[in-house]
Amino acid sequence: MQKRPTALAFDVFGTVVDWHGGIVAAVAPLAAARGVTVDASAFALDWRAGYPLAMDRVRRGELPWLHIDALHRMILDGIVGRHGLDGLSEAERVQLNRAWHRLPAWPDSVRGLTRLKARHTITPLSNGNFSLLTDMAKQAALPWDCVISAELFQHYKPDPEVYLGCAHLLGIAPGELMMVACHPSDLRAARDNGLRTAYVRRPLECGPQTTLPAVADGEFDIVATSFEDLADQLGAA
Amino acid sequence: MQKRPTALAFDVFGTVVDWHGGIVAAVAPLAAARGVTVDASAFALDWRAGYPLAMDRVRRGELPWLHIDALHRMILDGIVGRHGLDGLSEAERVQLNRAWHRLPAWPDSVRGLTRLKARHTITPLSNGNFSLLTDMAKQAALPWDCVISAELFQHYKPDPEVYLGCAHLLGIAPGELMMVACHPSDLRAARDNGLRTAYVRRPLECGPQTTLPAVADGEFDIVATSFEDLADQLGAA
Repeated sequence: MQKRPTALAFDVFGTVVDWHGGIVAAVAPLAAARGVTVDASAFALDWRAGYPLAMDRVRRGELPWLHIDALHRMILDGIVGRHGLDGLSEAERVQLNRAWHRLPAWPDSVRGLTRLKARHTITPLSNGNFSLLTDMAKQAALPWDCVISAELFQHYKPDPEVYLGCAHLLGIAPGELMMVACHPSDLRAARDNGLRTAYVRRPLECGPQTTLPAVADGEFDIVATSFEDLADQLGAA
Repeated sequence: MQKRPTALAFDVFGTVVDWHGGIVAAVAPLAAARGVTVDASAFALDWRAGYPLAMDRVRRGELPWLHIDALHRMILDGIVGRHGLDGLSEAERVQLNRAWHRLPAWPDSVRGLTRLKARHTITPLSNGNFSLLTDMAKQAALPWDCVISAELFQHYKPDPEVYLGCAHLLGIAPGELMMVACHPSDLRAARDNGLRTAYVRRPLECGPQTTLPAVADGEFDIVATSFEDLADQLGAA
């Protein structure tokens, strides 16, 4: 590979933190307290499935700019019924929606990021809103150098404004920035905007039944199995 | 004082870092290498003096939006002549302008911020551009939870958009945010926008000849002599 990237921009949901495990852990006690039997994994998958659809409505202009907290809440209100959770109070819904601010990091995330930080500027580059990413970093001790959210550009990935806006804010060329994600679609958009790319496999992203996406040989600059492996491949100490 | 503020927003130049000392340390070797005798303190004061004037030209619309790196460079080119430094090459000017990205923290800054971070979200809220603040944090090990720059709002302090935009990004009300600064004018604007205020004395901000600004009794919620003192007053461990 050519010169080391100056900065690394990380997708967050699935790549850095375990949204499936975090939502399962948040919904289970709420359901139990109400005496409702819920398939917590199915609930988490259902909630997450609404997310790209909702963002696409914003991207197409069918919805005004709404940040992820608002979209998550809209989706939540739409799915509680089919999971037997329509009895959740307003306070419980607010609390559950905040679970996205408190998602747990994957076991290798903090250690890998800490190693990478020694030689690269590291930032999230997520569709999650700014306060969500800031709260999450504080909670999970993610050692970011700064926080960059799609909210800053009022555009969601994969819109070019997000990738190019990130490089611009960091004062570097797109080619000096490497996008790190477990979603090939995110990486392909980053690559199409001149960024470098690192694909990290997250075989538990959607829980035990995760199907890993297909990735062509040589499609991305790096393919890694964890942030520790990524750090090794980038020559971190 | 009422309930503890959720987040603390810090002015940076003078409040967190020593711009006078940093610029003196950067210009002295460049001048020496050229055999020029320079009053490094006078040079630093002169460069800094151009900064509010340049920002005001942007705020009044006489200049388009330009970030601080661009304003610093414009001011630098205007003052080198009267300090005998007009012989500086383009590369030397670029290097000198980057000194603002590498300013040293005051001795109490990192320790105080680390203590405050345990119970508050801490962010810079500076007119410095985003990459400048990010580079500075990395260099000086400032443990910010996120980086918020006036650049994100395309408005300079004391425009209301900066103070209110910071609270909005953090997802909190202005009254849950406390501005920390060594400049009363910054704090007065923050207060006028509903923020809480902490004044920190920095008697060496402009070097040994610093004149501390006048502050009326009770004008600000807290008056502190250092970030350690601020942490004490906010009940940090």
